[in-house]
Amino acid sequence: MIIAIDMMGGDFAPLEAVKGVLQYLQEERSPARLLLIGNQEAIAPLISEYNVPQDLLKIIHADQVIDMHEHPTKALKEKQRSSIAIGFHLLASGKADAFISAGNTGAMLVGTLFSIKALEGVIRPTISTIIPKESGGTGLLLDVGLNADCKPEQLNQFAVMGSVYAQLILGIDNPRVGLINVGEEEGKGNILAQATYPLLKENKHINFIGNIEGRDLLIDKADVMVCEGFTGNILLKFAESLYEVSQRKQVKEEYFERFNFENYGGTPILGVAKPVVIGHGISKAKAFKNMILVAQKMLEKDVLGKMKEELQ
Amino acid sequence: MIIAIDMMGGDFAPLEAVKGVLQYLQEERSPARLLLIGNQEAIAPLISEYNVPQDLLKIIHADQVIDMHEHPTKALKEKQRSSIAIGFHLLASGKADAFISAGNTGAMLVGTLFSIKALEGVIRPTISTIIPKESGGTGLLLDVGLNADCKPEQLNQFAVMGSVYAQLILGIDNPRVGLINVGEEEGKGNILAQATYPLLKENKHINFIGNIEGRDLLIDKADVMVCEGFTGNILLKFAESLYEVSQRKQVKEEYFERFNFENYGGTPILGVAKPVVIGHGISKAKAFKNMILVAQKMLEKDVLGKMKEELQ
Repeated sequence: MIIAIDMMGGDFAPLEAVKGVLQYLQEERSPARLLLIGNQEAIAPLISEYNVPQDLLKIIHADQVIDMHEHPTKALKEKQRSSIAIGFHLLASGKADAFISAGNTGAMLVGTLFSIKALEGVIRPTISTIIPKESGGTGLLLDVGLNADCKPEQLNQFAVMGSVYAQLILGIDNPRVGLINVGEEEGKGNILAQATYPLLKENKHINFIGNIEGRDLLIDKADVMVCEGFTGNILLKFAESLYEVSQRKQVKEEYFERFNFENYGGTPILGVAKPVVIGHGISKAKAFKNMILVAQKMLEKDVLGKMKEELQ
Repeated sequence: MIIAIDMMGGDFAPLEAVKGVLQYLQEERSPARLLLIGNQEAIAPLISEYNVPQDLLKIIHADQVIDMHEHPTKALKEKQRSSIAIGFHLLASGKADAFISAGNTGAMLVGTLFSIKALEGVIRPTISTIIPKESGGTGLLLDVGLNADCKPEQLNQFAVMGSVYAQLILGIDNPRVGLINVGEEEGKGNILAQATYPLLKENKHINFIGNIEGRDLLIDKADVMVCEGFTGNILLKFAESLYEVSQRKQVKEEYFERFNFENYGGTPILGVAKPVVIGHGISKAKAFKNMILVAQKMLEKDVLGKMKEELQ
């Protein structure tokens, strides 16, 4: 198992990426082989300085970096020697089994969509986020922005992919799927939600519990919460802002701390043939470690194979 | 000026409605005449008990009540002697200038749409909510559920109606209008948001500042925040749940207290020819007082006339 890591992505790269790799190697009992992509001159000294065990590591030199605010498509095209471009090249050519980065999110999405095949039968890949539940558990919200306009069939696929991810990666047995909507009863909602409900109801591959409302997002009602990427993205960013508000207001409540999304170590793009994990720009060591762990788990548990199976 | 009040609507009616009327009469220097609609036998003794001054009051007996969970259309049709049906009859026939209720929200919406004309030129009326801003101010979010599917022209009208309301009722000068979206730049978003942006940009009747994201809702960026009723309803209910969460987690932060929407005294239906104000089911005296004040202000400041003018 070989996991490629963009060492140059994120506000605290490459230092925090190196520290994350170290944490991963120290804590994981059967770690994967890692390809560290980035500026050799920046990475190698840090590896020595932090005494990172080197037997499973290989540095792949990249002399370019795609900055956080560059235009994704343009940057990917013009910076073929960037860490992100090289990562996708390794992944597409089979030299890596998974790729993680906390760099330019747009470039990660564009790179994935252009260089990695969609899973057989998937209309469009999707991205999700963890939603901390008041009860202590976690829920999965998707789509959170990759697909601003959706068809009912897409939401139905998000429900399946989200369920597989929730079960195999988040460890939630028989995850409850809720359709995010403006009312509880069947027949409520906009045209999309009305047309999606019957598809979810008839879908034998998921445990559909019906509509959920905005007030149900934080409570222990549904584990997988499905909507199009417009509503999902606005909810995600609203939820992210809750952490910031609680920090500024000095609210010392552990629950709001859990809205600090940098703890979660990135989100995979679901529905493509190989694991790609995107991290937050502000990722620190723990987030890098968690991103590597998510990629490893996805490979070990054959999450993508299971998704393919459930989508048939 | 005559304001009709449904005394039977809400979880704490008629007691809290009577106490709200009393507060209103005590605090307002030039109070309106009030028509108190409801069960005479329940209301009259409370008015005596609480020493409510009676010179501006008239009780209109209603021997039926539409319960909170009744089907709106069916209930309105079958309960012609209910306080809500009588309220709309008084409003439509010109015997009242405004109507407020904390009763069955669906029945209030259906009653309004069927018995009160839309303002000239309005495609569809809308409902809004106050969003407490971290800075201490308030924003207005609309639509919050009356129109789950919208056309760009509707969102453009919501922006105008919201601006007039924000200016005349919330006291915000030259309110900044933001289009709720998934990114900042023009061209971002789903098909609806993309098509709405140019309309807002060209609209001379509003102060359009561009797109706002989920993270901007609580900060002091836009005063009037526009979206279709699907996203808006989910955001409203999510925001409402924040108060409940903070109560359960015993977070003693004044800001989260402001998400207790019962403080705000109801929301008017915007875009119809007469003021109709709908209150929360859990409305207490203060909320009733505030609802009456909103109706009075809307009449005094000719909010509807101004909206009509700005929509030309």
